[in-house]
Amino acid sequence: MQKGDFVYISYVGRIKESGEIFDVTSEEIARKEGVYNPEVKYGDIPVIVGAGFVIPGLDEALEKMNVGEKRTVEVEPQKAFGERREDLIKLIPESEFKKQNIDVKVGDFVSVNGVTGRVLSINAGRVRVDFNHPLAGKVLIYEVEIKKQVTEVREKIYAILKYFSNLDESLADVKFANGTAEIEVKGFQLAGRIKENVVRTIFQWIKEINKVKFSEVYEKTEKPKS
Amino acid sequence: MQKGDFVYISYVGRIKESGEIFDVTSEEIARKEGVYNPEVKYGDIPVIVGAGFVIPGLDEALEKMNVGEKRTVEVEPQKAFGERREDLIKLIPESEFKKQNIDVKVGDFVSVNGVTGRVLSINAGRVRVDFNHPLAGKVLIYEVEIKKQVTEVREKIYAILKYFSNLDESLADVKFANGTAEIEVKGFQLAGRIKENVVRTIFQWIKEINKVKFSEVYEKTEKPKS
Repeated sequence: MQKGDFVYISYVGRIKESGEIFDVTSEEIARKEGVYNPEVKYGDIPVIVGAGFVIPGLDEALEKMNVGEKRTVEVEPQKAFGERREDLIKLIPESEFKKQNIDVKVGDFVSVNGVTGRVLSINAGRVRVDFNHPLAGKVLIYEVEIKKQVTEVREKIYAILKYFSNLDESLADVKFANGTAEIEVKGFQLAGRIKENVVRTIFQWIKEINKVKFSEVYEKTEKPKS
Repeated sequence: MQKGDFVYISYVGRIKESGEIFDVTSEEIARKEGVYNPEVKYGDIPVIVGAGFVIPGLDEALEKMNVGEKRTVEVEPQKAFGERREDLIKLIPESEFKKQNIDVKVGDFVSVNGVTGRVLSINAGRVRVDFNHPLAGKVLIYEVEIKKQVTEVREKIYAILKYFSNLDESLADVKFANGTAEIEVKGFQLAGRIKENVVRTIFQWIKEINKVKFSEVYEKTEKPKS
């Protein structure tokens, strides 16, 4: 593929040392492997090759692949979630948590100043918290497949919308004409942050578009009196 | 006028007993009377007669008036901001404010559980706060004029939008065709609360409309490379 190509991919992501699956796009495989999570929306993932939609190691692999190809890719930490950094392990007085009425236990995930960490140990009123990403320092193995490429502008717009919103195609009416992308939804609002990301990404990666229009439609529900 | 008519009005609102102006729509009069406030956007106010856009006493007066007519209307508290209620004067321990590092003084406006009140007195650690509306119990005198009526659907849509958003006409492109109202803005978002109010009010008061579409347009700003 080339940088800037729009594709849909599927993958199974495993931690090399343990074989543990940390991410999987297929519901069927998730169920078979016993990692099914009812909160997750499964399905192929839209990716603009080389645009940072996936970790760098996977992005680079996609550039070397063709549509329909399946590969097993080993990704070193520096091209995945980074190396583990000892300086991201912090000692926090247990009293800081007690003040907020939080009873910490080893293994808990805690949020400190908006950053999530995992409690490693508690000794003499001092809590050791690891703020590294859970996958930092891990070598990852992806079985990745490029399922299809999309080339029509309308499909590219939808791919970007889906990446940022995970919205079903049936909930968004996507149109393209005269350089304008129009994304219409019914009875609800797309979050401001989603719209900002969609606009920025469209202008960066779909050269045919110079205008993006988001529309929200509301319909009168009462029946007219006869 | 009739209930449901769309008009633009101007007024000067005074407290009868003191003659004090508490609200005025004209910048010129505000300046002349020495009550000009640079934070306020002056101008005629859009009103749907009988729809509660203004206090009941003023709404009733509008129903008896004609376009171009000017009247002086005296409004009793029960048709304005209600009677003063002694039970809305509360005693709050000064310690409640100290806990929040608030140093209260007589005359201050304070917010307690989201409701604003005025400090009447502080005695022996007890703060008397009046949670009545500042105009509760007041007889009001309005000099009101119906400046114009709008009857076109497009103008009615804009009147509703203006009432809830105070948006300048140049910032919103309002269209009407085939039962659909379309409100388009460029480069910014209308707040969700504004959109909800506009939709509800349009469906209630403009019978020609059964669909409302809000659009936000973003344009690519970089010049294309030549």
